[in-house]
Amino acid sequence: MQQDHLLTAKQLSRSDIEAVLERAAEFDDDPEAARDLHAGELLALCFFEPSTRTKMSFETAAKRLGAGVVDMGSVDDSSVKKGESLADTVRVVEGYADGLVLRHPKQGAAKLASERVDVPVVNAGDGAGHHPSQTLLDLYTIREHAGLEDLSIGIVGDLKYGRTVHSLAHALTNFGARQHFVSPESLQLPRSVRYDLHEAGAQVREHEDLEAVLPNLDVLYVTRIQRERFPDDDEYEAVAGEYRVTPELLDEHAKDDLSVMHPLPRVDEIAPEIDDTEYATYFEQAHNGVPVRMALLDSLL
Amino acid sequence: MQQDHLLTAKQLSRSDIEAVLERAAEFDDDPEAARDLHAGELLALCFFEPSTRTKMSFETAAKRLGAGVVDMGSVDDSSVKKGESLADTVRVVEGYADGLVLRHPKQGAAKLASERVDVPVVNAGDGAGHHPSQTLLDLYTIREHAGLEDLSIGIVGDLKYGRTVHSLAHALTNFGARQHFVSPESLQLPRSVRYDLHEAGAQVREHEDLEAVLPNLDVLYVTRIQRERFPDDDEYEAVAGEYRVTPELLDEHAKDDLSVMHPLPRVDEIAPEIDDTEYATYFEQAHNGVPVRMALLDSLL
Amino acid sequence: MQQDHLLTAKQLSRSDIEAVLERAAEFDDDPEAARDLHAGELLALCFFEPSTRTKMSFETAAKRLGAGVVDMGSVDDSSVKKGESLADTVRVVEGYADGLVLRHPKQGAAKLASERVDVPVVNAGDGAGHHPSQTLLDLYTIREHAGLEDLSIGIVGDLKYGRTVHSLAHALTNFGARQHFVSPESLQLPRSVRYDLHEAGAQVREHEDLEAVLPNLDVLYVTRIQRERFPDDDEYEAVAGEYRVTPELLDEHAKDDLSVMHPLPRVDEIAPEIDDTEYATYFEQAHNGVPVRMALLDSLL
Repeated sequence: MQQDHLLTAKQLSRSDIEAVLERAAEFDDDPEAARDLHAGELLALCFFEPSTRTKMSFETAAKRLGAGVVDMGSVDDSSVKKGESLADTVRVVEGYADGLVLRHPKQGAAKLASERVDVPVVNAGDGAGHHPSQTLLDLYTIREHAGLEDLSIGIVGDLKYGRTVHSLAHALTNFGARQHFVSPESLQLPRSVRYDLHEAGAQVREHEDLEAVLPNLDVLYVTRIQRERFPDDDEYEAVAGEYRVTPELLDEHAKDDLSVMHPLPRVDEIAPEIDDTEYATYFEQAHNGVPVRMALLDSLL
Repeated sequence: MQQDHLLTAKQLSRSDIEAVLERAAEFDDDPEAARDLHAGELLALCFFEPSTRTKMSFETAAKRLGAGVVDMGSVDDSSVKKGESLADTVRVVEGYADGLVLRHPKQGAAKLASERVDVPVVNAGDGAGHHPSQTLLDLYTIREHAGLEDLSIGIVGDLKYGRTVHSLAHALTNFGARQHFVSPESLQLPRSVRYDLHEAGAQVREHEDLEAVLPNLDVLYVTRIQRERFPDDDEYEAVAGEYRVTPELLDEHAKDDLSVMHPLPRVDEIAPEIDDTEYATYFEQAHNGVPVRMALLDSLL
Repeated sequence: MQQDHLLTAKQLSRSDIEAVLERAAEFDDDPEAARDLHAGELLALCFFEPSTRTKMSFETAAKRLGAGVVDMGSVDDSSVKKGESLADTVRVVEGYADGLVLRHPKQGAAKLASERVDVPVVNAGDGAGHHPSQTLLDLYTIREHAGLEDLSIGIVGDLKYGRTVHSLAHALTNFGARQHFVSPESLQLPRSVRYDLHEAGAQVREHEDLEAVLPNLDVLYVTRIQRERFPDDDEYEAVAGEYRVTPELLDEHAKDDLSVMHPLPRVDEIAPEIDDTEYATYFEQAHNGVPVRMALLDSLL
């Protein structure tokens, strides 16, 4: 990457993405080679909202590179409670570290931070905005399993609110993937995202029926349908039931080498019986966060 | 140890225990020798309920071995709140680390985790279940002070609910110790534990009067009597007062070289005046957590 | 320093202070030289009340020296909740680390801790008591900008409750600084502090009008006026408005090379427009916490 910060997956060209994935693969193959690459450097973790998984993954990535971390701790404990602005907080924290990983409930927070500090900023999620390292680890996982060329992917679940999905869909347009979006009508892609994908030249189809589209897919990317999106519990149960991924569904309709992915945590979108089948790629996907974030940090620090 | 996980002290044979204690003694004698033994390795700390002392002790042990740690943080901040199962959480976390220390409010949690992951799991307490590293540091402390051979130990306080005590009592049967259990009637050993000890060939006696048994003891292991166990505050005060360990009690009734132990934190079971006497072994006991956990981690990582 | 603990800035002679600042300047000039100075050592962070900034700064300092840290975590999670005394907690923690940084809501906590443990204790703030590392980083910042000799400093805001200010004022008497205290009448220096400074031979003047004193100052040290000190919100607004530092105020009344300092976090005592002017020294001041705490830890560990 020729950038100082990683704010959104959209800033990454196809060759930027390929460079990160390539580097991640090197770290995956030979973790030992990374061990002292960034010794003596420190990464600040500024999580203004909780995200155990993402935080641990960045922390692990930093430490696998030989760097240390300094954790801002939970917001309840921090100066933020005394009314300090985000700009002030990050300007103080930049004095403690060689780079800054930021998660914040407000969209645009990472961009604002990047304008205020002289160290690299990695956006680890800003509200309804972006979460580019998640997109990169998704791409890495797809690349390892189905390959990014000539890909047919189904993305199922909450397509309306799922920022993970929007970001991934956009990035996949770089590789000419055939994208099938599967959701109940009430959770379809927002118009703006559909327009955006269209502009980027994406090959998109939308469906309501999972079974029908399944036979064509190399990858099935499942997301959580949140109960709180539905005014009525019965309606939620009906919808969630329809999109639940079970061994029977896959054995009957999917290709043998289908990879099932999920950004996790899952609740019951994927039956646990799938965990130990060849379809299950979601734990590996989570683990891929480490080499991918190592590659990111390596290019930015 | 020939095991992959440390789930309960019961899984350890006498020679397993002796190997750990021996190794701990080596680390105690020469801390510098350990410094880079596990450099480049990472230990995940998954504490689903708070335990400052145990967590700091494991963290210190890992770092004294040159390893790093990745902390899951408090449960309030974690994916668990989003409804994720323990099995999912640990399968994700195993991707971040070379070993996993788990504390969880539910009995059996560590066992379940160990069945799901490919890295070593150390049980750091699972509800009313086990806490084997506490037992090992207790044994180490006894060994350093009174020796494990021909030992006469008194265990006083809450024998009904104290998992620490049940585990220690069981482990001591390996060494043929004479065990005296001292408690008010309402807090006596549960029948199942008594049976269990009997089956293991333990030499057990039960008492209500501390003074009477004190002269025979090499070690007095004190535990906390919790106020909330008593329906009535006056009753609690009466009982707690009767088992409070004071300098007068010890000077009058104990051997000069009696070692007083306590798993800590204490409230007022042991008078602070004892802290600076030769009897007090409880702070050293706490400190022994470090070399003992170093030995454990060294054998598992 | 010829001391084992750092409890209060008052314990430091002029030459002690100069030694720390000199060492801090060395670390500032050549951070790499520090990198393995304290490798293999561990510092325990015991923060009994939250203080993100101070904690991150100590953690960074320790890690920049090659040492590790072990964090007690938040008090909600700790044994303190089970009723353990501070003395017991620190006696346990000393077994985990080579030094102890303590923050506690009660005045005198650090002193008490230092009497109970055999490792160095650094007071990182004890209620209305002391916070000596803040004073040292303030002095370091003044030294870098205006110099400590022949200094004219204005200290504005809440002089009644501001422990930072009392400690700094006292330390400055070592260097014969001319000190101007500027505050509304209700927030003037407490009598005891005024007496104390007088005894120490301080050159002190008190003012209510900021504009009038501004032209003479080399440094303006701004502190927060807390809303909750005022019975009435209107009164607060009036007072806070009168002492708000704005570009207009400075351009009209201050020397060109005035340095504006603030212990942070600020709310609106200093207009953000000042942040990118030459006056602004507060972020650098925060960053100076790292080399200064490195120097402290280096002398104590």
